[in-house]
Amino acid sequence: MAGELTQETLDPEDWPALRKLAHQAVDEALDYLQQVRQRPVWQPTPAAVAAQFQAPLPRSPQGAERAYHDFHEWVMPFQMGNTHPRFWGWFMGNGTAFGALGDFLAATVNPNMGGGNHVGNLVESQVVDWCKEIVGLPQGSGGLLVSGGSMANFVALAVARSAGAAVDVRAEGVAALPKPLCFYVSTEVHSCIQKAVELLGHGAKSLRKIPVDDRYRFNLAALAQAVSADRAAGLQPCAVIGTAGTINTGSVDDLEGLAAFCRQERLWFHVDGAIGAVVALAPHHRQLVRGMEQADSVALDLHKWLHVPFEAGCVLVRDRKAHRATFSLTPEYLAHAQRGLASGADWFSDYGLQLSRGFRALKVWLSFKEHGLDKYGRLIEQNIAQAQRLGELVCAAGELELMAPVGLNIVCFRYRGQGGTPQELNALNEELLIRLHEGGVVAPSYTTLNGCYCLRAAIVNHRTQTADLALLVEEVLRIGRVLQRG
Amino acid sequence: MAGELTQETLDPEDWPALRKLAHQAVDEALDYLQQVRQRPVWQPTPAAVAAQFQAPLPRSPQGAERAYHDFHEWVMPFQMGNTHPRFWGWFMGNGTAFGALGDFLAATVNPNMGGGNHVGNLVESQVVDWCKEIVGLPQGSGGLLVSGGSMANFVALAVARSAGAAVDVRAEGVAALPKPLCFYVSTEVHSCIQKAVELLGHGAKSLRKIPVDDRYRFNLAALAQAVSADRAAGLQPCAVIGTAGTINTGSVDDLEGLAAFCRQERLWFHVDGAIGAVVALAPHHRQLVRGMEQADSVALDLHKWLHVPFEAGCVLVRDRKAHRATFSLTPEYLAHAQRGLASGADWFSDYGLQLSRGFRALKVWLSFKEHGLDKYGRLIEQNIAQAQRLGELVCAAGELELMAPVGLNIVCFRYRGQGGTPQELNALNEELLIRLHEGGVVAPSYTTLNGCYCLRAAIVNHRTQTADLALLVEEVLRIGRVLQRG
Repeated sequence: MAGELTQETLDPEDWPALRKLAHQAVDEALDYLQQVRQRPVWQPTPAAVAAQFQAPLPRSPQGAERAYHDFHEWVMPFQMGNTHPRFWGWFMGNGTAFGALGDFLAATVNPNMGGGNHVGNLVESQVVDWCKEIVGLPQGSGGLLVSGGSMANFVALAVARSAGAAVDVRAEGVAALPKPLCFYVSTEVHSCIQKAVELLGHGAKSLRKIPVDDRYRFNLAALAQAVSADRAAGLQPCAVIGTAGTINTGSVDDLEGLAAFCRQERLWFHVDGAIGAVVALAPHHRQLVRGMEQADSVALDLHKWLHVPFEAGCVLVRDRKAHRATFSLTPEYLAHAQRGLASGADWFSDYGLQLSRGFRALKVWLSFKEHGLDKYGRLIEQNIAQAQRLGELVCAAGELELMAPVGLNIVCFRYRGQGGTPQELNALNEELLIRLHEGGVVAPSYTTLNGCYCLRAAIVNHRTQTADLALLVEEVLRIGRVLQRG
Repeated sequence: MAGELTQETLDPEDWPALRKLAHQAVDEALDYLQQVRQRPVWQPTPAAVAAQFQAPLPRSPQGAERAYHDFHEWVMPFQMGNTHPRFWGWFMGNGTAFGALGDFLAATVNPNMGGGNHVGNLVESQVVDWCKEIVGLPQGSGGLLVSGGSMANFVALAVARSAGAAVDVRAEGVAALPKPLCFYVSTEVHSCIQKAVELLGHGAKSLRKIPVDDRYRFNLAALAQAVSADRAAGLQPCAVIGTAGTINTGSVDDLEGLAAFCRQERLWFHVDGAIGAVVALAPHHRQLVRGMEQADSVALDLHKWLHVPFEAGCVLVRDRKAHRATFSLTPEYLAHAQRGLASGADWFSDYGLQLSRGFRALKVWLSFKEHGLDKYGRLIEQNIAQAQRLGELVCAAGELELMAPVGLNIVCFRYRGQGGTPQELNALNEELLIRLHEGGVVAPSYTTLNGCYCLRAAIVNHRTQTADLALLVEEVLRIGRVLQRG
């Protein structure tokens, strides 16, 4: 037999040195979060810093200290800004310090949540059960933590198409369906639903985009007509996707109405609640999402309004067997080992696309325990009240124009000033948004409603204070005036 | 206008207390990793601990200290065990302390890597470029960090089917294809390929499982016959999926042969390198994966043999435009903003399923810089040498039986002792594995080869030392003898 083998490891040669570095990193990270208000919301990455990221694959070690130093100098300062109290772009959470610590602990113990018998499964099961409690689905439902809303919607629609199909779609494929499936969404649907339908092989043309009412909600009469027309044309209506909190304006579909319609028509009812499912926690607004508890499946995000650090989404499916039957490659009758590490009847990898899975459940579990869900409910109310306040400030400022009813926590508006052609106002507000970002004081984002470019503030922020809203209005007025003077 | 709004936040009321807790957590996490060898590889979760995870949704706050305490008492001790030097189950990395710190830092700055103009994009671009360098794909290729091999393969196959289709599959769906597509794999293919093909809507029947040779590699002659037969039957061969490192035995297909065949037949050549793509870093074995650099797409995992904490996978696609065209819902001509936070021509969300994306790039970037890739290459060699040594120990022990040639770092063997019927030996080795796990000294996993239940040690472990292999053999012999005496 050959001689001694080499004995290298990725463990530190000098544990005390790494420990010192870790403590330094913790102190600087907490400083970063504690002082977030003192920094610009956003600033561009300087060219000299950007150039550092052109270096080829490092063959030789640079060491942990140097790597951390480079992070601290090049990466930490030039962030997106969504940790900041005056960031209201797209629809993102801030994260929290303790949530970040959760990711550190998860990566330290580093289990594979795809399967096996270990305590992580109990943590994830509990978190998923908690999510069922939040949205009102039965505890026996299927569920899985996923990367976010896109994957949650994808999983749910995969189950919907398998459960409703006249053939074994997993074995035979979509082309074997006697009638092509149709999926019904409103025109305000999130683009990830289209992506899911395309990837599942149904083609975007199978997606029926139904008009909305003047509050940007699903038009139920138009939905009924579309379903009926498709049936008459020999197609098979499969699922209706309602939205709890649209990305453009925060509107919530009439979920009770959609649920009743789906029951009557025997259609799968899916709720994309990536934005608004958690409104069920808000004492004064939970009636908005009534009907969600009747859904066949719900997608929600925990890294949005619950501020768990990225990534954390969840999909829930009322019919647990249908959920498993869509993804499992382990036959029901084939138990895993009876005892030991490889035991456990139900592995999470049987409920989704991933086999290897990280321990994202931990940061959710820690965060929910830290704050309790009543507090998240109050913070959602706080953001909704802030959005109403911002709407009032916009209406009170003669030069600004509210572009849609304030939906949940989303305010769409623009600078109008002395007015102008539609093209002029679009160009002005587009430039205005860029200057807001470059100024580093406030960071809303944008959308287009009925051809009008709008500034859009989605207040998903546990750090925003009332005074920050006034600052947003001030900055928009200041820059708007400058731009209109030309 | 209404009165003052509430002003709650998820930030700690007492920053110094949270800071103290974070330092405690870092110390205990580093202790955990530094002392990993002193603990059992695996132990069951006691029933009293498991019962704790039945508690309903916490409505009231428990505080960070209590939440961390519960983690420390209930979660930390009952782990899967893949951080341990004597864990050789499935195919998992150990993780590293600095990698875990990377996840903490990523969650602290918490950017959304789906889009926008911020430095995280440069970090991920650089990491993806480094992955191209590792596998030998051109720097102009498309690429994306993903959750792991399952998603990497899914993305690659989605591009393959779109790129090769006679119709616009995204718009029209799979059913509109004039000829059904076929995908070619060996019988040793990983199950996630089947999952991907099913989810994409092609049906498992579109997957042709080609026999392997006696070293568990793709039989090229059988492949050529299958492609030719499908063409004759009016089907459209789409892609061949070669495997660099099969899950059962670690064998590597003849990638050069497959590449030449695909070029000649004008088929998409995908390499599932979740396990073995990184063998390209190993100075004495890189010739095994020669041909990978000719692939149209490659899936690799960084949380396996590179020991980045879960989740970290990567997909690379030679034809960047085809990659983007499969996923982007932003038309090419529609630029994002010209300057500011919303600028940037290329957003990562245009290259995959997810819109919101976490900063998993950071832990990879920090880890690669910490150690340099030459060291990872040496560690891969070390594991391969350890597998060879284990194979020798198995062969030298008369009571054990090597069940397949040692492929890369995977050793499949069983206890034979005095022999027995196939059923008896299967039952014996199944029970033997459970007792190994319950003993907590060593943790291999299992597979079935030609109907024989095997113990399977996949040595993906930067902490394993030579003496650990002898301990595995000793334990198997000890328990095997006990079981055979009955």
